[in-house]
Formats: sequence, structure tokens, C-alpha cells
Amino acid sequence: MAKELKELTKRSENYSQWYNDLVLKADLAEQSAVRGCMVIKPYGYAIWEKMQRQLDDMFKETGHVNAYFPLLIPKSFLSREAEHVEGFAKECAVVTHHRLKNSPDGKGVIVDPEARLEEELIIRPTSETIIWNTYKNWINSYRDLPILCNQWANVMRWEMRTRLFLRTAEFLWQEGHTAHATKEEAEEEALRMLNVYGEFAEKYMAVPVVKGIKSANERFAGALETYTIEALMQDGKALQSGTSHFLGQNFAKAFDVQFLNKENKQEYVWATSWGVSTRLMGALIMTHSDDNGLVLPPTLAPFQVVIVPIYRNDEQLSQINEKIAGIVAGLKALGISVKYDNADNKRPGFKFAEYELKGVPVRLVMGGRDLENNTIEVMRRDTLEKETVSCDGIEKYVQQLLADIQQNIYQKALDFRESHTVSVDTYDEFKEKIEEGGFILAHWDGTPETEEKIKEETKATIRCIPLEGDRTPGRCMVTGKPSEGRVVFARAY
Amino acid sequence: MAKELKELTKRSENYSQWYNDLVLKADLAEQSAVRGCMVIKPYGYAIWEKMQRQLDDMFKETGHVNAYFPLLIPKSFLSREAEHVEGFAKECAVVTHHRLKNSPDGKGVIVDPEARLEEELIIRPTSETIIWNTYKNWINSYRDLPILCNQWANVMRWEMRTRLFLRTAEFLWQEGHTAHATKEEAEEEALRMLNVYGEFAEKYMAVPVVKGIKSANERFAGALETYTIEALMQDGKALQSGTSHFLGQNFAKAFDVQFLNKENKQEYVWATSWGVSTRLMGALIMTHSDDNGLVLPPTLAPFQVVIVPIYRNDEQLSQINEKIAGIVAGLKALGISVKYDNADNKRPGFKFAEYELKGVPVRLVMGGRDLENNTIEVMRRDTLEKETVSCDGIEKYVQQLLADIQQNIYQKALDFRESHTVSVDTYDEFKEKIEEGGFILAHWDGTPETEEKIKEETKATIRCIPLEGDRTPGRCMVTGKPSEGRVVFARAY
Repeated sequence: MAKELKELTKRSENYSQWYNDLVLKADLAEQSAVRGCMVIKPYGYAIWEKMQRQLDDMFKETGHVNAYFPLLIPKSFLSREAEHVEGFAKECAVVTHHRLKNSPDGKGVIVDPEARLEEELIIRPTSETIIWNTYKNWINSYRDLPILCNQWANVMRWEMRTRLFLRTAEFLWQEGHTAHATKEEAEEEALRMLNVYGEFAEKYMAVPVVKGIKSANERFAGALETYTIEALMQDGKALQSGTSHFLGQNFAKAFDVQFLNKENKQEYVWATSWGVSTRLMGALIMTHSDDNGLVLPPTLAPFQVVIVPIYRNDEQLSQINEKIAGIVAGLKALGISVKYDNADNKRPGFKFAEYELKGVPVRLVMGGRDLENNTIEVMRRDTLEKETVSCDGIEKYVQQLLADIQQNIYQKALDFRESHTVSVDTYDEFKEKIEEGGFILAHWDGTPETEEKIKEETKATIRCIPLEGDRTPGRCMVTGKPSEGRVVFARAY
Repeated sequence: MAKELKELTKRSENYSQWYNDLVLKADLAEQSAVRGCMVIKPYGYAIWEKMQRQLDDMFKETGHVNAYFPLLIPKSFLSREAEHVEGFAKECAVVTHHRLKNSPDGKGVIVDPEARLEEELIIRPTSETIIWNTYKNWINSYRDLPILCNQWANVMRWEMRTRLFLRTAEFLWQEGHTAHATKEEAEEEALRMLNVYGEFAEKYMAVPVVKGIKSANERFAGALETYTIEALMQDGKALQSGTSHFLGQNFAKAFDVQFLNKENKQEYVWATSWGVSTRLMGALIMTHSDDNGLVLPPTLAPFQVVIVPIYRNDEQLSQINEKIAGIVAGLKALGISVKYDNADNKRPGFKFAEYELKGVPVRLVMGGRDLENNTIEVMRRDTLEKETVSCDGIEKYVQQLLADIQQNIYQKALDFRESHTVSVDTYDEFKEKIEEGGFILAHWDGTPETEEKIKEETKATIRCIPLEGDRTPGRCMVTGKPSEGRVVFARAY
């Protein structure tokens, strides 16, 4: 779509505006006519598809299968698990009728009052309830276990303040729901999927994450334990990027799902659930991008290489076309996705700006002199560095460059996080440091009261109790009471 | 999941019951707690995933990209296109509230009356309205065209009588929505996608289809022309399997989507939409399956080959395991998906019945004598024929057999259709033949009145005006008025 490529707001001027500008100008997503629901545009969706494909492969490698459960959930199901309903009731879209009819005034349609549902249905905010109601019929004995299902679906949580990708009323996600014969197996599963998420974030998104356990306050509604991966954005705020829950027997009890164990006794089934959503798009955008636009990791870029010709006349263009055809074929043979843009209705400078904005990892440019010299100009999007290299072996050169970019943007994000992670020992110091953003490692006495006080006074929350790193005990920075080890604080999205 | 493998109802006894039995017993899908909404179980979903992957590749090869549009549509949008609202208003799920609250009596939750939406939202029955409202902002000039978007999504049509896969309130589908600068280009696109559907049905599903145009009565609500692929089921009923619509400028006018054409004049945009759904699962099941269960085309089977060992003792099993490992590796190297089922908690006979029921195209069995003789028993699911062949070259043998099965089930379905397609010239003969099922080619005067009369008197509908075959004019079998050519009648799902 032709459009003016206006300047992005700079990150240093207004980070939040920079993000909104970028999402719109890079054609990733936009608001729809329906409050809080976004349209994911083709370029944004292509990135999401790449994420889906990779995650789906990883789920299948770890033994999971996909299935599909209903969009709508009977209202009464939600009430079965006390904490669950408490967590979700306030943000439910409710279906009350199943028919419209012509308005008596002849203007449009109205809800047909005679088509009222006996029981209201809610659009799933998450599917534990409908799925455990289904699993009840699938499980009789330990031989039916484990069940390792995932579904790719849309869900709806009626948020009051929404932001594209980060917090929307409707979002796309996957939700895994597993059923196990033992507590140990379910706990293992919850941790396994946390590690899958961690690997996906670091290896494919190039986003370093801290893996840890949520405090009780931040736990999923209905979980006994919530594991999380937490990423740090360039503005120093944390973004929760994926969670995996050990649900104990809560949902099995709520929906009476028992099985005959090996000792021939009835027992409640153990459960996990885990999910990542289109929120990951927000993490991806904010971790790597700069004032020129998106920076995408080569593994998730819709196309990894763009080639632009610069030519004086049709004859020269056709020579360049011929030369480039060989390079395109060579790149494709190496599994590299490439777009050759020789459209004549846009100037090269316009194309350069557009592909920078869209974060294409590598740009190749061939002009008349390159043609003579058998060279090509290579630009890498992450550092914007340019060099002119020989066309001989260009394919292998680009392949290595893509790997370098993937590694470099990960390392850059990791360096950023490390330089924005500090340990503090006093609450005064904490209050000072939290204003600078970043992760703060501090001792906490483990009580919800202290956590709440810190949140009220500083807007910082406990992102997680980290699973790795220094676990030396100490004293809570607020109360002086014993602490089992430092936890990660930050202000968060 | 362990369960008793009870006999299926025979097709000849009760075809409809056979279908329901099969969907349930082969673990494809089941009813959920929500009226008319199904749970698609992992085995059924694995088939749907294979369909999706193939269709998605075909859409991308024809230049389409994926995107995602909101689940909810403002009620008023529906009224913008007069025929469209007429077609869908009666089956809309309506969201009226966005919050639940605790019931005053302490029992569960109720809809919070204070959280009533200003304008009701409907769950998309199809997305023309929300998408054309979005396209309005994407289109200014002919340079912005064409737009070739597809989305994979769930939709909801509140059907009163539902059947698994064939007619459900919620179903999964893809919907393509394209925008063009000229009428010709939009018409071409609608036909292109009809042909993609036809190729997919015949080449991958092994389901022969008649391609044609819908009569005005059967057109999509808001379309100028609806193209369809029509398949014939084993009970002689037709199943509409996919439709592609030329929408003219109807939605562009309803949502005021104009563009500046090459002559610098404002013009309304031309549109198409096209979709196939989980209904295709019904077509797949009913076309090929038999009284022993599913018969799946190798191209869409979740696994193409199952191998079962028969052994006297652990030592023999370990010898067979070793031998089979080589065969499994060889099959996988040819891109053939294979499952080796040496689980010791089920008898071979039980496994045989289960894999027959699930339609696995090829079964290999190795027993002690086979091990001695370097042979293996091969059974093909489509004909249930068994033979014992040498293990040398078994991989290539199976590869060829899979291709044969794909071809054979297509040919069988085509033979069935051809032997159940008749031309009739009088209405009396029509009334007689329609009782036998199948496609009837007959002359029709082209009026909705005659079509309606035939439908009322015989329950037969015009499936399509075929695009191929004999188009000799004649006289309507009912009115004697001129007919442009025979059309396809049948009773239909």
C-alpha cells in the first residue's frame, strides 16, 4: 500500500509514542472499529505465523497434540473454581441472545428479545473450565493419562486500557492443557513448557529472558504455582512474555475428574496449563527496534533479504535483473527467503526507508558500477553498516551474516539487560533505582503485604523469584525479616 | 485413550447413524457442553491441520497473504448491506455485556447490568462487513489494489439442528477477502479460487467435485455470483464443499470504499470472498469410509503407515524391534509418516481394529515367521487386501502403494458419482429418480419459482449450473419453457 513514510517519534522523546507509531507505520496492526480489538495486518501476521510454526514444532517435539475446544463457555462453569471466577468475571464478554430481527422502525436490526439464552455464555478468557469439563469424559483410568493437548485460539478479556499487541480485548494465543496421574509429572510438565518458552524467546526471538516463579499475588487465577519468562524492554520496563501453570488438582476437583490409579483407587487428576500470545509481538518489537523502525531476528522475519536495483535505463535494469536472478536462486537454495523489488513506481530511497522501517535483516543493492565490478552492496539492518562485496560467494556470505545478526541482536539485548540489572540492599536505594528502570534484585520477606506496600509506593512488582543465579538468603529491604534469596523487581507492562 | 471398540452401525442399516458413530469412535470430534459447538479431538484436528497446511500453501502460491480481523462485529455493520443482514441476522450470537459480578445470593455469578454495551456486538458469522470497514482505510488509489487477504478463523452461526462437522454453531474455516480495481479482475479471482478448491478436493481429499454456479436462490447473501464445488456422498446426497463469491461493488458501496482509478476518477472497489470450513471433514469422512471405519487419503492421513509386531516372547520382540527400526528409518527417509505400535497393553487384534477404524492407509505386520523369511504382511486400508512381501525394497513398495491408494479411492468415488448421475427429461422421471439419490441433470427454466416448486415437491435443490460438460439448450422439465442447459439437482446436506 502506497503511503507517506513519515518519521517515527524518537524513543528518547516518547517511548510509548515511538511504539505506537512503529506498529502502525510498519504495517503490523491497527485498532479496529470494535473497542480494544485489533486488526493484525499481513506483515504483522506473517511474523506471528513464523512464531506459531516454530512453537508448534516445539510442542509436537515434546509430545503434544493440537485440538480445538468451544469459543463459548457456560457462565456457570466459571464459578466452579473459586479463584478462577474471581480472576476473570470482571472482564468477560457475555453472549445473551442468539438472534437479531428487523427493527420495527425499519432502521436496521435489533436484538430479538424472544431469542434470549437460558444460560448466558461467555467468550473464553482462557479455557480451563470447558476443557476440564471435556476431559472428565476422556479420563477413566491411569491408562488414559497423560493427556497433552494444545489449542491455537482467540480469547477475549475485556480490558479497559488497551495497546496494540501488549493488551487487547481479543488476542490470539495458544493454550496447552495437560492432565497427569501424578503431582510430580504435572510439575515436570509445567517446568518443561517454561523451558520451551525460554528457548523459543532466546533462540528464535533473540530476546533474553529471566525464568522464575511468580509470587502468590501474581499467580494465575486457579494455579498453585505460576512459572514465567520475563523480558526487559528498552525503556526499562519488564514484559511478562509467557507463563506455565501447575494447577494441582483444582480444576479436577471443580469438574470432578477422577481416575483409577495403578493401586485401583480413585484419585483426582493433576493439571497444568501454559500459554503465549500475540503479546510476544510486543516483546519482539520493543526489544530490538530503533528510531529507524523495526529490527527483526532473521529466524522470524517474513523475508530475510531484500534486493533493490539502481539503474539508469531499461537496458541496464534488464542486465541487473539477469544478474540478480542467479543470486536469488542461490539464496533460496540455502533456504533464505528473499524479495527482489524492482518495481518502477517507487524510488530506491523510498524503498530503502520502507525496508528499514519493516526491519528486513539484510538489504542488497546493485547499481551500474556493481554490475561492471561483479560486486553488490550489503547492508545489515541491526547496525546499519554497509559494505561492498564480491558477487562470488555472496550467498554463503549472506547466510553467515544472517547468523551474525541473529547472534548480535541477542547479545545486544542481553548486554542491555545486564547493564540494567542491579542489586540493591536498602529500600531507599530501591526507590531511587526504580526510577531509572531495569531489573532490581532485592531481598523480600515473602509476604503479600510487603509486596503490596512496595507496589503502592513505587509501582514496582515482583516479576519473579528467579530459578537461576545467586540464591543466597538475606534480609528483606523493607521489613528486615529473613529472605530466602533476592527476587526480581521491575515496573512492568 | 483406552476404550471398547464397538461395532459401527452399518451404512446400509442407517447411514446417518453410521456417520455419527464413526465421528465419535474414530476420535474425530464430539459434542461439547455448549449447544451446537463441537470439540475437535486430536485425531480429527490432525487431519484438519493437514488440510489447512495444504490449502494455505495453495493460497500463498496464488499470491495471497494471511491477516486477522476482529471476532466481534458492531451490530449496525450487519445492516449496511441489505441482503447480507437478511441472510445472517437470524443466526447471530449477540454480546450485550462485558462483565459478570457475584450473585447477591452468593451462588455463582450473574451478568452485571451496569456493564451493558452501548451497541451490541455480534460474533462474526462471516467477516465481509468488518473487513470492508477496515479496507476503507487501506485503499485510496488503484496503486493500493489488489488486496488479497485470507484469514483462518472461527465463526458462529446459530443453527437449530447441528451435526458434527456438517453443521455446527461454531466452526473453523478460512475466509478470503479480496479487493480489485476492475470487475474482470474480481471475476477472475473468484474463479481462480474455485479452481484452487476444486484441485484441493480432487488431488488431496480424493473427492471428485462438480464445479458450477449457484442459482440466485442459493447465492451467498450479498453476492452477485456464487461459485461452488459440489460432492456426492455415499448415501446419494450432495455436499456443498466450498464456495467462492463475486461480490461486485456491494460491500464497497455499503462501506463507501472508493479508489482513484488510472483515469483519476473515484470508483467503487470490486470484491470477492471465498471459504472452506471444517465441513470438509464431513465430505472427507463420508466419501471414502466404510463399515469398518474411516478410509483416509494418504496425503491427509495423520500417519500413513502403522506397523504392528506379533511376538511370542520378549526376545522375539526385541528382534522384531531391531528389524522394524530399519524399515521405519527407510520410510521416514522417503517422507512417509509412520507409527510403530509395539505397546504391550493391547492385543494385535485390538490394534488392527483400531487402526482400521482410524483409517490408517497402510498396515504392516511382522511376526516370527516373517522375521525368519525376511518378509512382512502388508494390508491396504481401502480394499483391506493383504499380501506378504519381501522386506527388501519394502520402503519403495509402500511408497507406490500409498500413491495407488490415493488414486484408487479417488477413482472409486468418481465411479460412484458417475454411476449415480443421470439425465432425466420429464418431471415424473425426476420424482422417481430423486428417491434413489445421486445427481440428476435436468433442464430448468431459470426461474426461482420453478426451483422453489421443485424443492417443495421433491426436497431437491439445484446444486449448481455446471461450468463443464454438455451445455446443450432444451426445455424445462416442469414448465416446458426454454432452458440454457442442464443443471445439477440433488437432495443435499
